[in-house]
Amino acid sequence: MVRWEPGAAGRLREAAMELYVERGYEQTTVAEIAQRAGVTARTFFRHYADKREVLFGGSETLEKALLEGLASAPAEAAPLAVVAAALDAAAGPLGRDHAYSRRRQSVVDANAELRERELIKMARLGAALAGGLRRRGVPDPAATLAAEAGIVVFRVAFHRWVEAPEPADLGRLMRETLTSLRAVTA
Amino acid sequence: MVRWEPGAAGRLREAAMELYVERGYEQTTVAEIAQRAGVTARTFFRHYADKREVLFGGSETLEKALLEGLASAPAEAAPLAVVAAALDAAAGPLGRDHAYSRRRQSVVDANAELRERELIKMARLGAALAGGLRRRGVPDPAATLAAEAGIVVFRVAFHRWVEAPEPADLGRLMRETLTSLRAVTA
Repeated sequence: MVRWEPGAAGRLREAAMELYVERGYEQTTVAEIAQRAGVTARTFFRHYADKREVLFGGSETLEKALLEGLASAPAEAAPLAVVAAALDAAAGPLGRDHAYSRRRQSVVDANAELRERELIKMARLGAALAGGLRRRGVPDPAATLAAEAGIVVFRVAFHRWVEAPEPADLGRLMRETLTSLRAVTA
Repeated sequence: MVRWEPGAAGRLREAAMELYVERGYEQTTVAEIAQRAGVTARTFFRHYADKREVLFGGSETLEKALLEGLASAPAEAAPLAVVAAALDAAAGPLGRDHAYSRRRQSVVDANAELRERELIKMARLGAALAGGLRRRGVPDPAATLAAEAGIVVFRVAFHRWVEAPEPADLGRLMRETLTSLRAVTA
């Protein structure tokens, strides 16, 4: 029988989220996170650069998923269809833990610095998508417009998903939101 | 004969921009800006909260222009047509001083903190547009999607305008970019 044995990174993430929700992000120290996770501060810093990183460490995974989805689209696909494939690929890992995402969002929403960090993250993802489209031969402004339209869909769909108390299918919400965007711009 | 006598705010803005371009934003102090404009630091602070505010003080004018344009659209206009009217209204004041906008952009691009501030500014303008659409009776997600699509068009068109060494018509660029977005999402 296999016991569920989360690694230190997962335990630290869970401990951090508990403390951020209980006390607030600003009031929580790295020492307290490490203590609650039952590890040393030194171990914390082996996994995360700082307490903010705990909330944003997943953005590289997200970017990777988006770019893999983008690469999986057929060569002849229109730019926005390529972006739709990228969103679909990202919805998988991103939509896995609704309860965690809801807690994370409440922490981010409560702190101006974290909200700004989230904007920067989304801007980076948009730039990565636009770069990926250009590498597929999509010229500008179409590459930037399709990528940024995709980020708008991503944000609106994710917001709807995280606002709902029950976990919906994030991929389906993204497809519905893309359809709404097409209707608005038709 | 009337002598051109700019007010202290305009002289301070010009002095700040010169120094930001010459020495870099970070290396410039409020005392130096005031000195170059021939006023005291006390006068500087009557016009601007800090040296960053010199670069972002125009965002209220911009938001006002967007919302006035939005209000000017006919009641039966589709959400994206309302947003187009808002962009058209903003293109007037924003597109007035190409040389200034180019210098400002070079200063913003060179500094991570200012680039972040610009992202926050655009997020606020998007929220203001979405709010304006909701007040016109546009439901969500259409209101948010139309507003955010408008901000994408705004950013891409403004970037094209400011990148060009010669001043083009910003309003025309915005309309062209909106047409490109419609093509990409069609």
